[in-house]
Amino acid sequence: MASSPFRFELLHSDTGCDARRGRLHTPHGTVELPTFMPVGTLGTVKGVDIARLRETGAQIVLGNTYHLALRPGANVVAELGGLHVFMGWQGPILTDSGGFQVFSLAERVKVTEKGVSFRSHIDGSALEITPERSIAIQEELGSDFAMAFDHVVALPNKREVIEDATWRSVRWAERCLEAAQREDQMLLGIVQGGLDPELRQSCAKALVSLDFRGYAIGGLSVGEPPEEMYSTLEATVPALPTERPRYLMGVGRPEDLVESMARGVDMFDCVMPTRNGRNALAFTDQGTVRLRNSQHERNRDPLEANCPCPACQHSRGYLRHLFQAKEMLGPILTSIHNITYYQRLMAEARQAIEADSFSEFRRAKLAAWGAKDSK
Amino acid sequence: MASSPFRFELLHSDTGCDARRGRLHTPHGTVELPTFMPVGTLGTVKGVDIARLRETGAQIVLGNTYHLALRPGANVVAELGGLHVFMGWQGPILTDSGGFQVFSLAERVKVTEKGVSFRSHIDGSALEITPERSIAIQEELGSDFAMAFDHVVALPNKREVIEDATWRSVRWAERCLEAAQREDQMLLGIVQGGLDPELRQSCAKALVSLDFRGYAIGGLSVGEPPEEMYSTLEATVPALPTERPRYLMGVGRPEDLVESMARGVDMFDCVMPTRNGRNALAFTDQGTVRLRNSQHERNRDPLEANCPCPACQHSRGYLRHLFQAKEMLGPILTSIHNITYYQRLMAEARQAIEADSFSEFRRAKLAAWGAKDSK
Ligand SMILES: [Zn+2]
Ligand SMILES: [Zn+2]
Repeated sequence: MASSPFRFELLHSDTGCDARRGRLHTPHGTVELPTFMPVGTLGTVKGVDIARLRETGAQIVLGNTYHLALRPGANVVAELGGLHVFMGWQGPILTDSGGFQVFSLAERVKVTEKGVSFRSHIDGSALEITPERSIAIQEELGSDFAMAFDHVVALPNKREVIEDATWRSVRWAERCLEAAQREDQMLLGIVQGGLDPELRQSCAKALVSLDFRGYAIGGLSVGEPPEEMYSTLEATVPALPTERPRYLMGVGRPEDLVESMARGVDMFDCVMPTRNGRNALAFTDQGTVRLRNSQHERNRDPLEANCPCPACQHSRGYLRHLFQAKEMLGPILTSIHNITYYQRLMAEARQAIEADSFSEFRRAKLAAWGAKDSK
Repeated sequence: MASSPFRFELLHSDTGCDARRGRLHTPHGTVELPTFMPVGTLGTVKGVDIARLRETGAQIVLGNTYHLALRPGANVVAELGGLHVFMGWQGPILTDSGGFQVFSLAERVKVTEKGVSFRSHIDGSALEITPERSIAIQEELGSDFAMAFDHVVALPNKREVIEDATWRSVRWAERCLEAAQREDQMLLGIVQGGLDPELRQSCAKALVSLDFRGYAIGGLSVGEPPEEMYSTLEATVPALPTERPRYLMGVGRPEDLVESMARGVDMFDCVMPTRNGRNALAFTDQGTVRLRNSQHERNRDPLEANCPCPACQHSRGYLRHLFQAKEMLGPILTSIHNITYYQRLMAEARQAIEADSFSEFRRAKLAAWGAKDSK
């Protein structure tokens, strides 16, 4: 462990809430926490070239194991130099385990204690992922952070279904730990347990006893009201060790990030900046902007006057025109703006924590967005 | 005329052929000739942001009057600061007249001596473009170079149809000259005449007597064999004044550019680098590369080892994967590579002309591409 290239530093805890400022050292550089990871499902953050992605301020990106295993195949990625070389990203990369995607995208999914068999959503071919196979794929991809393979169930669901999946996920997590071989890859366990505080705490406790070097919180932001996600976080986060990074998977809206940071989360990922960007929805400090709206037709103002991104070199009128004319540049620029917006938000959040003013920062942001303060 | 911001300099004529090295001064900077103009139909070169476009080496871009007049409308572009501000391109811009697009894209086209009435290909609305209206739109867009509105007919066609359209184009060109008011916009006449050398020469003579400050050659590369295009150029170019720039519209393949430069052409535009790029076809010094081909699956080499473009920071295997996975970044990167390739070709051509070695350059390029030498 002493020679590990991974190290988590807790730099400062905000005195007014549970937000914390950390730093995560990896073989591909350092990540300032809290951080937001843009999603590069298939080895590309959709529509954004690698130099532009760097310019957004992103420090770490996420790749999807399920998607990459189907296309082009982990062995092809490995032959082309591994995921970093493949996509041209020199910074840290986190890959998910494929669990969430198997259960949400694949067809004819069948779970046994051994693993999951399913049909590819692309060509229908029969496939299987076990905890060991998920780790093997992630090691072949060569990401810095790998995720334990977990059994994800839809919410709401019967208590026994959720419990069964949660404990299976814990048993699979242990198998993942045993299977992992790469010293230059750090494995995170994933706390499941639906919206049940006690189940979440039991799951967290079981995973902590396995001594993962980082912990993720999975199975949230799947349709439940934000309040329930926040209260689940409040039950879960205190059960995780202070000296390990905490990653809330697949979340979310800017207000979700702020609320979750206030509850002690260090890492996030979400497709929202890019998916919404492709759909002409831009994030700003004054809330979201629907660029297709005709009110922007002759608007000379940029999305945000103080944003350094290439979209904000143009007028809202021009961006609207690009979407009206179905020009690729509309999705490209708005995706870049949104990722930049998320990165600027995280940079501001880090500063606020350092200044012990995160609660103020949170109130101000929520008010400007027109979002409801959860407390 | 003495105070005009436009000036054409003929720097050097190759001693071995008719290729020439020139320079064109405009209100938005200087263009080194020969030059290739990427096509930004709707105020964007498809998939390429403005900073990336500059990085390709492009010095001047083309906008399409017909498309911009329909969407978002020239008045909207003007209100958003004119075409330069609208699209964020600080360099020179040339707009076409809309003639070619009306005759190739619009519906229910009706030509009278006054102009052309037609239905929009987007919403079917009834519209009219006259020579005066074309100039007014181009002045509203605020391009550096405007084109005379011409009557374009498909080839092959009856001699009388071609003659009729050619002389109407000359009369319309005169009306365009009379209508033009902006001192900071330079109008080019367009030589028509199908594939008939005598008609081309008569048309050129008539336009030259109107004293345009630059001349375009239109109505070529519309399906005729390359040899016929080249021989038409050989008939037309000598009828144009040496001291004015010559622009071959809508051309073309790299070999067409090289063959046409050898015949004295200074300016080109074509959608080929971007349209082919979106379709996974890349241009290289060894000919075209079909990136969807399975032979590239595990290929670690870039498209071109010496190309500075962002596509060439990646392997062919990665580019192929992007197209296979239908990722936007495939079209984006390949378009950028292709424009960069065209710009590098033009830069090499300019050097070859300066060194009086254009004929050698032409032979070497055609041989490497596997193209047939036309002479
Ligand atoms: Zn921006
Ligand atoms: Zn390239």
